[in-house]
Amino acid sequence: MQWTRRHLLGLEELSAEEINFILERADSFKEVCTRPNKKVPALVGRTIVNMFFENSTRTNISFQLAARRLSADTLMFSKAGTSIAKGETMLDTARNIEAMGVDVMVLRHGASGAPWKLAANVSCAVVNAGDGQHEHPTQALLDLYTIREARGRIAGLTVGIVGDIAHSRVARSNIWGLTKLGARVMVVGPTTLIPREVEKMGVEVCHDMDHAVRECDVLNMLRIQFERQDGTNPFPSIREYKQMFSLTAERLARGKPDLLVMHPGPVNRGIEISPEVADGPKSLILRQVANGLAVRMAVLQMVAGVAAAS
Amino acid sequence: MQWTRRHLLGLEELSAEEINFILERADSFKEVCTRPNKKVPALVGRTIVNMFFENSTRTNISFQLAARRLSADTLMFSKAGTSIAKGETMLDTARNIEAMGVDVMVLRHGASGAPWKLAANVSCAVVNAGDGQHEHPTQALLDLYTIREARGRIAGLTVGIVGDIAHSRVARSNIWGLTKLGARVMVVGPTTLIPREVEKMGVEVCHDMDHAVRECDVLNMLRIQFERQDGTNPFPSIREYKQMFSLTAERLARGKPDLLVMHPGPVNRGIEISPEVADGPKSLILRQVANGLAVRMAVLQMVAGVAAAS
Amino acid sequence: MQWTRRHLLGLEELSAEEINFILERADSFKEVCTRPNKKVPALVGRTIVNMFFENSTRTNISFQLAARRLSADTLMFSKAGTSIAKGETMLDTARNIEAMGVDVMVLRHGASGAPWKLAANVSCAVVNAGDGQHEHPTQALLDLYTIREARGRIAGLTVGIVGDIAHSRVARSNIWGLTKLGARVMVVGPTTLIPREVEKMGVEVCHDMDHAVRECDVLNMLRIQFERQDGTNPFPSIREYKQMFSLTAERLARGKPDLLVMHPGPVNRGIEISPEVADGPKSLILRQVANGLAVRMAVLQMVAGVAAAS
Repeated sequence: MQWTRRHLLGLEELSAEEINFILERADSFKEVCTRPNKKVPALVGRTIVNMFFENSTRTNISFQLAARRLSADTLMFSKAGTSIAKGETMLDTARNIEAMGVDVMVLRHGASGAPWKLAANVSCAVVNAGDGQHEHPTQALLDLYTIREARGRIAGLTVGIVGDIAHSRVARSNIWGLTKLGARVMVVGPTTLIPREVEKMGVEVCHDMDHAVRECDVLNMLRIQFERQDGTNPFPSIREYKQMFSLTAERLARGKPDLLVMHPGPVNRGIEISPEVADGPKSLILRQVANGLAVRMAVLQMVAGVAAAS
Repeated sequence: MQWTRRHLLGLEELSAEEINFILERADSFKEVCTRPNKKVPALVGRTIVNMFFENSTRTNISFQLAARRLSADTLMFSKAGTSIAKGETMLDTARNIEAMGVDVMVLRHGASGAPWKLAANVSCAVVNAGDGQHEHPTQALLDLYTIREARGRIAGLTVGIVGDIAHSRVARSNIWGLTKLGARVMVVGPTTLIPREVEKMGVEVCHDMDHAVRECDVLNMLRIQFERQDGTNPFPSIREYKQMFSLTAERLARGKPDLLVMHPGPVNRGIEISPEVADGPKSLILRQVANGLAVRMAVLQMVAGVAAAS
Repeated sequence: MQWTRRHLLGLEELSAEEINFILERADSFKEVCTRPNKKVPALVGRTIVNMFFENSTRTNISFQLAARRLSADTLMFSKAGTSIAKGETMLDTARNIEAMGVDVMVLRHGASGAPWKLAANVSCAVVNAGDGQHEHPTQALLDLYTIREARGRIAGLTVGIVGDIAHSRVARSNIWGLTKLGARVMVVGPTTLIPREVEKMGVEVCHDMDHAVRECDVLNMLRIQFERQDGTNPFPSIREYKQMFSLTAERLARGKPDLLVMHPGPVNRGIEISPEVADGPKSLILRQVANGLAVRMAVLQMVAGVAAAS
């Protein structure tokens, strides 16, 4: 196939073929990232702008570094606290920055759907780096890449996603990606954190962590945020949550011998995952981070190529 | 002619010949900015520092991007809130940064005259990116460039500058540039926002927006800031201001068929200009932003060249 | 000799031979820094991250610029206010950033020993840009370089370090470096600011500034911070301190004719040093800043080379 999308907005709209195409492109950039000189001239003279309307360190740095390794110029525009109510401002800002001759905008925004709104209003390429509680496609792509790298395949594996499914863009994007590529997906957590509609996405719901540990080939532990910005607290107490869902070494020992552990970071050590598991031999956490570079290099190069050709 | 100035501080001190020289240089960079690879090796190994003592996003990004496209290394130093009282600190900081081997300093400062003070104390080149209520020469240059590009000439045109003339560095720099290049300039606004001395700069004063719309070939709508930092409020009410001076589609329809609309940004949509005018076919707003890159590339290359030769 | 250290953590652990080796390498970069094009391709495709957990402008800019002149890509991660209590967070952040393929981390941290802790937990190179009240090795190296450049040698010179010796990492690193290279070191200040143990480092203690001025070939005036973060105030009054220890023109006139004055910056003009001395002919302050670039280029290139070879 040939890549024809100008934007990477979410995994819901991608076909399995497109997802696999990205993962294969990422393979070649993974090789580049092992060289002493990690730079390729793919995007010399192109400009990539990170527009981050939510605080972020790791995703921001990962995209910046990916852009630099493609030899693009990078610019950073960040303005935390801007909400959907100020969506107009986001578009005005974007149109101005686009007028300066930008090739790709990488957008993180607190409002679900913001990247689609942006893509409809600019002619450069748009990459979604996380929109509200909706999608975080490059995180899911690097998770898929990491599973495929560690296990050789995705189809047929059972992958558990554990935590606050209801509010997690990482969970949503992973569910789309994993089911499209043929994995069995189990969402795991207390009733209050799993929305009823999730079963329509083709996943199994599980409220028993020990059952999930026994069934799964991979466990993706979401970060638990006990303090929510909207003041509501859908969580049981931290103590109760840990007792029921925390991935401890003891719990992990009851799973399959080749069970693998993932986490999108930053890790709350001792809350959703114990330190010895996070740093242990079954953990893929740092490989996820490393693979994020390769996946984002692939995505940026692909969308920049489409933008340039049109 | 040959460019011999080490600094670009204000348009008041430039001759018409010098202004035209910059605009012609900008033409070649405008062409560069239309290429897929927008980078030229003009300033490889040179260092350009943005020293911003006032908050700014667009001007900052525009200068940074211009410097990168010339292949210079860029550094950002920002410290909002520093006032004229701390002028000594600005010079100390600047001398230290200069000692690191900097070629050009781009200064934005809340104190009128700060760039001249800086230029007198460092041996690198200084570019004024806005000083107090005094000058903003690159904004005026990109405005001139945009008018010339759209209408083929500047001499003989009637250009209206509408809004808070008294406190606007954009207005001052535009007045110097436009009058030097032979335009007829009309400043438009309520009595409280137009200083009496402005007529000495060779402009006509107009308090009737409808008259200005009929007379002008170009209207440059200044951004209205209803909340001033000094707590004073020289404005009538927003409602009254809008009724008298806002550029609406209805008002615009009464102007010449080829009347063009400009705005230095960011736009207060619905205040000084209505959204349909800002985004309409007569608006040059995004072309101003695009041309800003070319003009700033020209300026940076010219002053860096003089600094290197001396 | 061949440089074999992967990290530059402090001068206490370096031999005189190693220190001289760095100073000699810096000579060649000093020459590079005088060229119009100050860029060398030494670290193309390498990534250097500034991790600054304390506010800093000058050291940060100096390291960034040094990295760029070596053609490395630079990333900035800053988070002021993080204390030793959150050391775990620093390591987690560092491991994540390392996983992205970073070659050198430049760390500034409020906790003494943080760079050693970091170096023990990552496989990339670590450079200490100041840790608590412990060491600031590149500052001392640039001070040594500047003395050697101005006087042709270090051995046999008498160097006075004046101010808050007890809390100064600049003082500690300078003491290690100067004594290893054979200088006679005199620490000068009020009793409350000179720890008793300092004599074990091989220095003389002096509480009489006029005596120090007469004896010394070089005076390194530390920045006095009258407001300490921990709320304690070990200082006499400002007025009293100035009277006893400030380096005024009058005091300076009583010293040797070739007495040289240094200061790590930023200068409190009129407190520890008078403006006419700071800007006068005996001042090496701006040469220190300039030499900082050359010294940091040398250090970054050396540690990156070791990291790449292993």
